[in-house]
Amino acid sequence: MPRITFKPSSKTADVPGGTALTDAIRLAGIEMDMACGGQGTCGKCMVRVEEGDFKTEDSGILPHAAREEGFVLACRTAVAGSAMTVHVPRTVERPEGRFVDEGDAGWLVRDEPEYGSADPIVIRLQLRVPRPRPEEGLSDADRLERTLRQQTGNRRVDIPLKAIRSLARTLREYDGEVTVSLARGPEGDRVIEVESGERPAEAVGLAVDIGTTTVAVRLVSLPSSRVLATRADYNSQIACGSDVISRIHYARDAIRLDELRIRVSGTVNSLVINAARSLGIRPESILGAVVAGNTTMIHLLLGLNPDPIRLAPYTPTVLRVPPLEADEIGIAIHPRSPVLISPGVGSYVGGDITAGLLCTGLPEETDAVSLFLDIGTNGELVVGNRDFLLSCACSAGPAFEGGGVEHGMRASAGAIEKVEVDPGSGRAGVRTIGSAKPLGLCGSGMISLLAGLYRTGWMDPAGRLSRSRRSPAVRIEGRRARYLVVPASDSGTGGDITVSETDIDAVIRAKAAVFSAIGLLLERAEVRIDRIKTLYIAGGFGRVLNQEDATTLGLIPDLPAEKIKFLGNASLAGACRALASGGQRERLFGIAGRMTYIELNTSPEYMDRYTAAMFLPHTDRGLFPSVQPAGGLR
Amino acid sequence: MPRITFKPSSKTADVPGGTALTDAIRLAGIEMDMACGGQGTCGKCMVRVEEGDFKTEDSGILPHAAREEGFVLACRTAVAGSAMTVHVPRTVERPEGRFVDEGDAGWLVRDEPEYGSADPIVIRLQLRVPRPRPEEGLSDADRLERTLRQQTGNRRVDIPLKAIRSLARTLREYDGEVTVSLARGPEGDRVIEVESGERPAEAVGLAVDIGTTTVAVRLVSLPSSRVLATRADYNSQIACGSDVISRIHYARDAIRLDELRIRVSGTVNSLVINAARSLGIRPESILGAVVAGNTTMIHLLLGLNPDPIRLAPYTPTVLRVPPLEADEIGIAIHPRSPVLISPGVGSYVGGDITAGLLCTGLPEETDAVSLFLDIGTNGELVVGNRDFLLSCACSAGPAFEGGGVEHGMRASAGAIEKVEVDPGSGRAGVRTIGSAKPLGLCGSGMISLLAGLYRTGWMDPAGRLSRSRRSPAVRIEGRRARYLVVPASDSGTGGDITVSETDIDAVIRAKAAVFSAIGLLLERAEVRIDRIKTLYIAGGFGRVLNQEDATTLGLIPDLPAEKIKFLGNASLAGACRALASGGQRERLFGIAGRMTYIELNTSPEYMDRYTAAMFLPHTDRGLFPSVQPAGGLR
Repeated sequence: MPRITFKPSSKTADVPGGTALTDAIRLAGIEMDMACGGQGTCGKCMVRVEEGDFKTEDSGILPHAAREEGFVLACRTAVAGSAMTVHVPRTVERPEGRFVDEGDAGWLVRDEPEYGSADPIVIRLQLRVPRPRPEEGLSDADRLERTLRQQTGNRRVDIPLKAIRSLARTLREYDGEVTVSLARGPEGDRVIEVESGERPAEAVGLAVDIGTTTVAVRLVSLPSSRVLATRADYNSQIACGSDVISRIHYARDAIRLDELRIRVSGTVNSLVINAARSLGIRPESILGAVVAGNTTMIHLLLGLNPDPIRLAPYTPTVLRVPPLEADEIGIAIHPRSPVLISPGVGSYVGGDITAGLLCTGLPEETDAVSLFLDIGTNGELVVGNRDFLLSCACSAGPAFEGGGVEHGMRASAGAIEKVEVDPGSGRAGVRTIGSAKPLGLCGSGMISLLAGLYRTGWMDPAGRLSRSRRSPAVRIEGRRARYLVVPASDSGTGGDITVSETDIDAVIRAKAAVFSAIGLLLERAEVRIDRIKTLYIAGGFGRVLNQEDATTLGLIPDLPAEKIKFLGNASLAGACRALASGGQRERLFGIAGRMTYIELNTSPEYMDRYTAAMFLPHTDRGLFPSVQPAGGLR
Repeated sequence: MPRITFKPSSKTADVPGGTALTDAIRLAGIEMDMACGGQGTCGKCMVRVEEGDFKTEDSGILPHAAREEGFVLACRTAVAGSAMTVHVPRTVERPEGRFVDEGDAGWLVRDEPEYGSADPIVIRLQLRVPRPRPEEGLSDADRLERTLRQQTGNRRVDIPLKAIRSLARTLREYDGEVTVSLARGPEGDRVIEVESGERPAEAVGLAVDIGTTTVAVRLVSLPSSRVLATRADYNSQIACGSDVISRIHYARDAIRLDELRIRVSGTVNSLVINAARSLGIRPESILGAVVAGNTTMIHLLLGLNPDPIRLAPYTPTVLRVPPLEADEIGIAIHPRSPVLISPGVGSYVGGDITAGLLCTGLPEETDAVSLFLDIGTNGELVVGNRDFLLSCACSAGPAFEGGGVEHGMRASAGAIEKVEVDPGSGRAGVRTIGSAKPLGLCGSGMISLLAGLYRTGWMDPAGRLSRSRRSPAVRIEGRRARYLVVPASDSGTGGDITVSETDIDAVIRAKAAVFSAIGLLLERAEVRIDRIKTLYIAGGFGRVLNQEDATTLGLIPDLPAEKIKFLGNASLAGACRALASGGQRERLFGIAGRMTYIELNTSPEYMDRYTAAMFLPHTDRGLFPSVQPAGGLR
C-alpha cells in the first residue's frame, strides 16, 4: 500500500490508492479542522504535496499561485502513486482542547427563579428491608419493592434484572440495610442500583449542553441543586466541519456517522471524567443526566443519520427522545443512569432552546410578550408568552464562539473578552479572561473590538478598516486590511494577534443573520419591538457581553438596559433545573409541545432583511436611535 | 504445569497442582455426568488413576476393592505430581444430546380449552406512515407513533432508541410503507423493529419449558396459535448435577454460576436454532418468548445465585421477574424480543406450575376441588379451586425422566415406553417410541415394567426381584439382582438393556415422594381423595403414562379413569397459551398471586408418609382397592 509521509511531524499512514488525503491525515493521527465537512469550500485543509503522484480536483477556492507551488485541498485530493510526501502547515493542525473551569460557585443560585417542587431525576434512599418470613412467600425482590413503596407513597417501582443480579448478597450483607438509587419517572420509579449498608443520601447528577462548537458539562448535587463543578471544551466534531450543515455532509456514510457519535460522546466523557476527578469521585458514581443540544447534535449523539434535517421538508428522525440509560449512548456515568434528552421543536430549534427557556419566565408571561435569543453557531429565537410561543433559527456561523476566525478562541483563560480602542492612535488595549497573557479573541472580545473600532471611526459601517487615517494598528495588505490587536511581544502565543477584514466580515454576517431573524420573527408574531417586556440573551459568550457593544454592532435591538437579561449558558442551566426538579421536567415537555417553529431559510424576505443588516448598526439607522454614528466620539 | 492425559481418548489438560480431576476432565473437553454436583456422594465420576501422584478423599462411597484397583472419585481427587494418566470409563462420559421432534402437529389444538381473547405477546402491523408535512412539525418517530396509535385504539406505544436508529431510511424506502413488530404489554406497546415494505403479518413466538432434566421449546405462529415445531433435549446442566440441590451446590462460585447460566441458555438456543432451521427461518426472526421453569432453573437462567433457595427460610431472589428483552438473558431470538418469565410461587413451586395450571380449569373451578400434579425431577402439586390454591413440592429425582437410572433415557426415539412381562417366563416384550431399536427406558417404560413385574409376581411389593422362582430374565449378582429388559442382540446400543434393583429402588423412592406429598397436601387442604373432581397429570413422561400402571405402582391415587386427565408437558403448553393470549397472561399472574406454598421438607409427618409409601402400591392396601395383590394374575 502507498505510504504517505507528513512533514514536519514525519507521521505516516499506509493507505490504498484512491484514498483522500484528509483520511490519510486523520489515519496518521494528525487532528485537522475541516470546517466545510470535506466539500472543498472552506480551504482549511490546504496542504502542499512535496513528492508523489496524486489526483486533485480544483474547487476554485485555491489561488492560482498556491496551486503553482503545489498546494492542494486535502479533501479534494486522492493518492495515486506508490508513495507521497505531504507538508501539513502548522495552521492546519488543530491544537489540543483545553479543559476550562468556568467558575462554578453559585451559578445556579444566582439570579435564577425557584425550581418548583424539588423532585430530582434520581434519589437515594436508605432503607432497611425486613428479613424474609417463610409464611409471607415473598422473594427478595418482593420485599425490596414493598419497602420502597412504603417509602415513596406507594409509587410504582420497576426493579430491572441487572439490579436484581446481586440483590441476594447485598440484602444479607448488613441484615437488610441498603441504599437504593432510584430513577424517578412521571409514572413510577426504576431501581438503578442497590448497595449494601448506609451510603450517602446525596446523588450527583450531570447536566450537558452540546453545542456545535462548544460542549459544557456541570455536576450538580441532588437534591440540594448545589453546583459541584463545571467544565467546557470544544466539541471534537469540529475537525469534521464547523457548522451543522458541514457535519451533516460529513456524516454521509455509516462509519463517519459513527465517528461523529464517538467524537461527541468522547468530548462529553473527557469533561465528565475531568470534573469528577476534581471532586475525587468516580464517573460511575454519577447517577442521572439531562442532555440539551440542538437537533443535529442530538441526532449525532444518538447515532442517527442527520441527513433528513438538511433536506426539505427538514424532518428530524426524533424530537422527543425516549427515556434512555447512559450505556445506550456511551456516556461514561453509571451505565443504568437515566438520561433525559431535552425535547426539540424542529430541525433547527432543539432541546437546548427548550432547556434555555426554563431559565426564563417567558413561557408563563401573562400580560406582556418577551423575546429569548440564544446565540451560538446557530442563533435561535423564541417570542411569546402564556398564549403562544413562536420560534425560528438562523445560521450565524461559529464567529461568536471564536470559531472560523483566524485568532478566535473559546471564552476561556487567555481569551480577550474586552477591547478598548484608543480614538487617537487607533491602538487597542485588551482585557483577558483570568488576566492571562492574551491568546486570541473570544466572541465578546470580537464584538467589543468591532464596536470600539466603529465608535472611534477606525472602521466604517461596512466593516472596512480606515485607509485614509493611518494607525500603526492597521496594516494594509493589498486590497484587504488587518488590525493588530496584540503584538507578538505581548501575546501568549509568540505571534501577533490580529483581526482581518475577512474576520470582521464573518462577525458582521453573523450579527446580520441574527438581527434579521429577530425582525422577521417579531413581524410574524405581530409584536412591535417596544412591546417586548424582556429580552433574554443566552449563549456561551453572553456571560460578559456588553449591551452597548452589542447594540452598537446591531446584533440586538436597541432597548433600555433594564429590559435586557443576560443568561449565560441557559441551555446548561436549564438542564440543571430539569435534573433537580420534576416540575421543571414537566414544564420542559410542556414548552416543547406548545412551541411552533417557523422556517426562515425559505423566506425571500429574510434575505432582504439580511442584506439590510450588513451595516453597523443597520442601514435603517432609525432602528438604533441610541447608537452614535461612526466616529461620533471624535 | 502438570499435564493430565485421559484414556482411552488421549485427550489432555494442563492444569495447576491442586486442581480437581473433575475440572481437568472438563477442561480436556470430556463431558461427564456429576449427578451430586461434586459432593462425592453419587459416585458417577469414578475414574482410575494409572500413573502419577494425587490426593484423594475417601467419601465412603467407593467399595474397598475399587480403591485397591486405583479407582477414585474425580470430584474428590486433586492433582499432586507433575503428570498423570487417568482412565475415564466409557460409562462416565455423557453421550451427545439428541434433538427430538416430539410430534408437533396440532398439539395445542387437541384437547385444550379456549385461550380467551387472542392478544398475542407480539403482533406485526403493516402500516403506511404519512409523509412529513412541514407545518405539522412532527419527527419521523412522531408520525410513526401517531400512525400506530390510530391502528391500536390509541394505545400507548414506546419507540426505543434502537428501533429509531434506522427509522429515517426505513420510512423512506417504500414511501412510508412499513411493517412494525410490537411487543404488547398490559400498559402499552413497545416497538421491537420497523421493517420497510409490506412483510408477513405472521409473527413466530417461542415457548420454553426449562426442566431440571429436560428442556423443551416450541415455535408457535401468532396470532393463529398454530404449532410450527417442537424440540426437546436434556438440560446440559446435567453434567453439573442431576437435581436442583446438586446444581445449587455446583453454583457455589461466580464462574460456575455463569457456567450453569451458559449451559442452560446454550441448550435452549441449540433447540431454537434446530427448530428454526426445520422451518427455514432465522432464529432472529422469532419475536417473543414465554419461559416457564422451576424457580432454581429460572434463577440459573438469569444468572442469579440460587443458594438462598436451598437454605432456610428458602427465599428466592425473585419470583415475578421483570419484563425482559431476549439479549438480556442470551436467548438467541430477536435481541429486542419481549421475554416473559412465568411467575413462580416459592422456592420449590415455580413458573412451570403456574404455566401448567393454564391448561386446566382448576383455578376457576366453582363447585368442586381438583388436583394438579406435575411429575419431573421434582414433583409439584396444586389442590384447589376458585376459592383457594394450595401447593407443595417434593423431590422425586430424575428417574421418571430416565435420569439416574443405568439404562434410563429421555422419552425420545428408541426409548422403551411400554413393557409387557410374560407371567410364565418373566421375559419382557417392549414397545419403543418411533418403533426404533430400543436404546433404553424412559419414565413411562420404567413404570410399565415395574407394574408388569409386580402384577406377574416377578417382583415383590418392596421392589425385590424374585429369587425363588427363576426366570432367564432375572440375574442374581451376589445380594442384588438385575432384570434383563432387552438382550444385546436386540438392542440398538449393542449391549444388554437391564434394570437393576438399585434402579427399581430409585423409581420406588420417586413414587413414594410424590404419593406421600399428595396425601399430606390433601390432608392440609382438608379434602378427601374421593372429593377430587379431576386429577390433572402433567410431566414429560405423562404423554404415554398408563393410568393402570401408575396406580399399580402407587404413584397416583386410585381414582376412576374418567377423573384423570393427562396433560403431557403442561408447562410448555401453558407457555404457548401465554404467548398467544393477553387474557392468559393476566390469568397466569393472577394464579401466581393467589397460590399459597406449603413447605413439606420440614414436616416430620412427611417422612412417615414417605416410608409408608415405599411399597407397591402402598403399605396401606386400602388406599388402592382396585390394585390386585402381587402376582395376583396367576
